[in-house]
Amino acid sequence: MLKPGSTIGILGGGQLARMIALAAAPLGLKAHIYAPEDGSPAFQVADAHTQAAYDDLAALERFARAVDVVTYEFENVPVDTAGHLARFVPVHPGAKALGITQDRLAEKSFISALGIEVAPFAAVDDEAALEAALARIGRPAVLKTRRFGYDGKGQVMIRPGDDAAAAFKAIGRHPAVLEGFVPFEREVSVVAARALDGTVAAYEVTENEHRHHILYKSTVPARLGATSVATAADIARRIGDALDYVGVFAVELFVVGKGAEERLVVNEIAPRVHNSGHWTLGGARTSQFEQHVRAIAGWPLGAVERLGARVEMTNLIGEEAETWPAVLAEPGAMLSLYGKAEARPGRKMGHVTRVFAA
Amino acid sequence: MLKPGSTIGILGGGQLARMIALAAAPLGLKAHIYAPEDGSPAFQVADAHTQAAYDDLAALERFARAVDVVTYEFENVPVDTAGHLARFVPVHPGAKALGITQDRLAEKSFISALGIEVAPFAAVDDEAALEAALARIGRPAVLKTRRFGYDGKGQVMIRPGDDAAAAFKAIGRHPAVLEGFVPFEREVSVVAARALDGTVAAYEVTENEHRHHILYKSTVPARLGATSVATAADIARRIGDALDYVGVFAVELFVVGKGAEERLVVNEIAPRVHNSGHWTLGGARTSQFEQHVRAIAGWPLGAVERLGARVEMTNLIGEEAETWPAVLAEPGAMLSLYGKAEARPGRKMGHVTRVFAA
Repeated sequence: MLKPGSTIGILGGGQLARMIALAAAPLGLKAHIYAPEDGSPAFQVADAHTQAAYDDLAALERFARAVDVVTYEFENVPVDTAGHLARFVPVHPGAKALGITQDRLAEKSFISALGIEVAPFAAVDDEAALEAALARIGRPAVLKTRRFGYDGKGQVMIRPGDDAAAAFKAIGRHPAVLEGFVPFEREVSVVAARALDGTVAAYEVTENEHRHHILYKSTVPARLGATSVATAADIARRIGDALDYVGVFAVELFVVGKGAEERLVVNEIAPRVHNSGHWTLGGARTSQFEQHVRAIAGWPLGAVERLGARVEMTNLIGEEAETWPAVLAEPGAMLSLYGKAEARPGRKMGHVTRVFAA
Repeated sequence: MLKPGSTIGILGGGQLARMIALAAAPLGLKAHIYAPEDGSPAFQVADAHTQAAYDDLAALERFARAVDVVTYEFENVPVDTAGHLARFVPVHPGAKALGITQDRLAEKSFISALGIEVAPFAAVDDEAALEAALARIGRPAVLKTRRFGYDGKGQVMIRPGDDAAAAFKAIGRHPAVLEGFVPFEREVSVVAARALDGTVAAYEVTENEHRHHILYKSTVPARLGATSVATAADIARRIGDALDYVGVFAVELFVVGKGAEERLVVNEIAPRVHNSGHWTLGGARTSQFEQHVRAIAGWPLGAVERLGARVEMTNLIGEEAETWPAVLAEPGAMLSLYGKAEARPGRKMGHVTRVFAA
């Protein structure tokens, strides 16, 4: 159990690291950011930062010795990096969560083995395997690299008539997974935390709307039957337990079917605080960022109840950040900007949270 | 009007500067702290800091040139310091607010001239003036240095039978003010913000309980008649306007009389965010820290409404900070620790905010 005055080390210097650092401070904890990029947004709010590559073992060791626990803001932390750090200091979430979630095939197999439904999937290592997988799963289907994809990168849709070999080439002929298309009604997620003692606390299910493969808007509560609400929390608990997880994670889910036929299919797990949990910052009693800090510090989890009758979180992507004056002028709207200098298209620049009384 | 990416310079590196810096970040602003003390708590969360004396003109100029606006966390900023900074960059709140609130005599005269009641007072520059003042005002009375007092320092009570000359000696024979004792029912405060365009937004009146001259607990709403509630907001507006104020300030008030006889007497003005406004962090739609940043940035003020039916803020003084594990385990309690290494007696180490639904 960390004491106030301790230092949390965070791999990655983007908005998630920044918001974790901002949540750590009121708990009396310092943040030390480790990121290779010049001018990383999280540097602005941290007590210390190390600008170095993720494979710089000497810098990693110095970093590890300067902090009391290490966490990360992205799931693609190289396993060697995490392993090296873990020689000197606890790393949360741990190696199992990283190893499984870095590999789409391992992740889907893991979830499926827990008896939780995922989209039909098949491993694709070459064109022959892809043809066989398409024959079994059908079209449309999505071909995704097993490793290092996010926000729609590293994946390609294969529709009826599309050339399968061209699709495989488009993702660089990397080891891949073919996923069957799930005819979903909507997309939801459950953000949950698991404490060092195994306690799990799940936030309410969040309904998510994507545009161009990037989260556009989250709404809480989600339109979801009571059975599915309970199922979502149960899925989170089972996944958290099976990963022996410590910290906040998100499970992205497809809602399939209507009414009594409604069921949930897991899309993927994110072993970190998640964009679909940003509504908790100002919209729940404890933000996902504070919750993550509590978990990795070995502290009890905070209350997850929603504030208000409905909460909406809208991302500010690229030039949408230019709307900040209107957001500031809107009573009750809560602005979060990420301190990024350049508003490139598709770049997450900030978000707005609105808590509605009714 | 500042743009996101701009830098706010803050004089002082304590908890108030720290919480201003933490509030500036989600608005896309960087903080640069200027403080002489080693290991100032605000350094931990700021993009940059300058550790230098308040009379180091060269360091002040470099600081001023590195930021887009300057503000401060304490009212005793030397007037020369503020004046030097103002040559290079806007300083909010301005010279008038500093000049008046640094001098208890000027402050009481200023408030009184607005037609707002203050405790009976008289200037005391020597023993003869003190005797005359005591004859007019009566005992008990409080003798306070005109300048540089806070949290009960630089003041002494003169009760019937006390030796007046000894009291004057006890405050170092500094120029002083004798204040008549106000037989108050309770102490309240109004924390308000004034924007660059003159808009004033006052938070709800806060009821304050002190122990050993240090704020112990704030409760909102205060036990106060509707007329007094309106009067408090009006007092804040008139003071803010008369000071041509920009930023957050607090007016400490005594509640005198009961029922229809109830009236408010101003104790003092604090030209800064204020301990009695800490409840707004988590207990109001916009915290006083964000509100202050909005004001000095030239932005519109945020919504000041209270969250929940009742909000309580309790300071953690000295060793009380050791109760942090119990606070973390209490559902819904919001912990704010200030990142101070050493828990000296009487030192404000943090606070807890509790929002009650009913």
